[in-house]
Amino acid sequence: MNEKIKILLTNDDGINAPGLHVLYKEMKKIGEVSIVAPDSERSAVGHAITLSDPLRVFDFYKNGQFFGYAVNGTPADCVKLAYWALDIKPDILISGINLGSNTGINIIYSGTVSAATEGMFLNIPSFAISLTTFTNPNFRIAARFARKLSRIILKNGLPKGTLLNVNVPAVEDEEEITGVEITRQGKAMYLEEFDRRSDPHNRTYYWLTGQKVKLESEPDVDDRAILNKKISITPVQFDLTDYRFLDELHKWKIDY
Amino acid sequence: MNEKIKILLTNDDGINAPGLHVLYKEMKKIGEVSIVAPDSERSAVGHAITLSDPLRVFDFYKNGQFFGYAVNGTPADCVKLAYWALDIKPDILISGINLGSNTGINIIYSGTVSAATEGMFLNIPSFAISLTTFTNPNFRIAARFARKLSRIILKNGLPKGTLLNVNVPAVEDEEEITGVEITRQGKAMYLEEFDRRSDPHNRTYYWLTGQKVKLESEPDVDDRAILNKKISITPVQFDLTDYRFLDELHKWKIDY
Repeated sequence: MNEKIKILLTNDDGINAPGLHVLYKEMKKIGEVSIVAPDSERSAVGHAITLSDPLRVFDFYKNGQFFGYAVNGTPADCVKLAYWALDIKPDILISGINLGSNTGINIIYSGTVSAATEGMFLNIPSFAISLTTFTNPNFRIAARFARKLSRIILKNGLPKGTLLNVNVPAVEDEEEITGVEITRQGKAMYLEEFDRRSDPHNRTYYWLTGQKVKLESEPDVDDRAILNKKISITPVQFDLTDYRFLDELHKWKIDY
Repeated sequence: MNEKIKILLTNDDGINAPGLHVLYKEMKKIGEVSIVAPDSERSAVGHAITLSDPLRVFDFYKNGQFFGYAVNGTPADCVKLAYWALDIKPDILISGINLGSNTGINIIYSGTVSAATEGMFLNIPSFAISLTTFTNPNFRIAARFARKLSRIILKNGLPKGTLLNVNVPAVEDEEEITGVEITRQGKAMYLEEFDRRSDPHNRTYYWLTGQKVKLESEPDVDDRAILNKKISITPVQFDLTDYRFLDELHKWKIDY
């Protein structure tokens, strides 16, 4: 592979997010990098696409140099637009580096994962990568791992319909990382609450809050791997059919 | 079941959508109905939740009577809010009736399905129901089927972690419905394009467009059942792990 590989980067924290910038600098070492990312933060947008509004594309500069395209849409919009409208046909797509983990059932709320999913639908080998902290992020370890993983994916190929969801534990020193674990999506959920508050005009509003509970003990569960200071890699697919329940449902003999 | 069942309705077309109103009238025949729905259309919002803005709840009146709660959020927000903040603990949750189908891979973009998913996470038996047309909708057939299916679900129970995704073919006369098919999620995709246009100020904008392609021929695929004028019921779950690929991925022996 002497020819430069074509790499598309996106994220859900917005084109100016530090995680994207660190990833960009690292990936430039091995390829020709394009960036198409939301113009502002779009966290927890899930797999949203924009149907009812027009999308616009802006050139985004960083330190006086062209950095990439900013879009007034979601991460999924960015990938579709890059491919179909901007004619960017990459060898690999990376979404991230996200600030905060994307594990357990929360990946269905994840804009970061949704962008990699769009890449997968377009038959581009794709992965999402997240750093499991919100404070004092050090993206360098994750960025270097993204570069290494890109090489491995390009060598081995991913099956049609499968993407990888990568979570990197937040550590101060890279020596603390104890390895890589191939994981499955955990069932850890948030125990949710709503803060009920009053605004200055004495009107009620609600703010979502919550904490993660019920973490499984098996080491091959995504969040458990992170706790064990391992990089977690979950292969993800989007056939949501509950095959185990099909037989039982047939037995209900529902008619019209 | 002589006691009135408690039913929560929501949707992604907004609290004033006709599909929700027809469903409400039908479900009132068998239970005590609460409505918590977005204040305006939220189509293709995927599984978005609102983290960065406060949520507000408004009483919504229809024909001078209290109809339900309108929320400035997504369908997923509505279900969380109903349960945690408004203390609505229903026996069953129905999301719909959506204007337009939710089948194939498109269910990952579906606000309608995301609301049923939230209900499932809260261990409420939940289903999403959609009418497969955008023009001249006749919601009555779907509404009656929702009532019937609710009874069946309450009698049999759904497994933890499973919801039902129901699509009802658009027909003029209910005699045209040929039955009910238990289906799996198809792989039909949209072949997408972007319309490139210029606004009155001569700035470029893009608009997503596309058409569905590659429909599988098996009768137990959701879209195929619809074409055969059957009501399609797909059991849906949210463990996205690609279990078939785990072994192969282990063989890659990725280290840090």
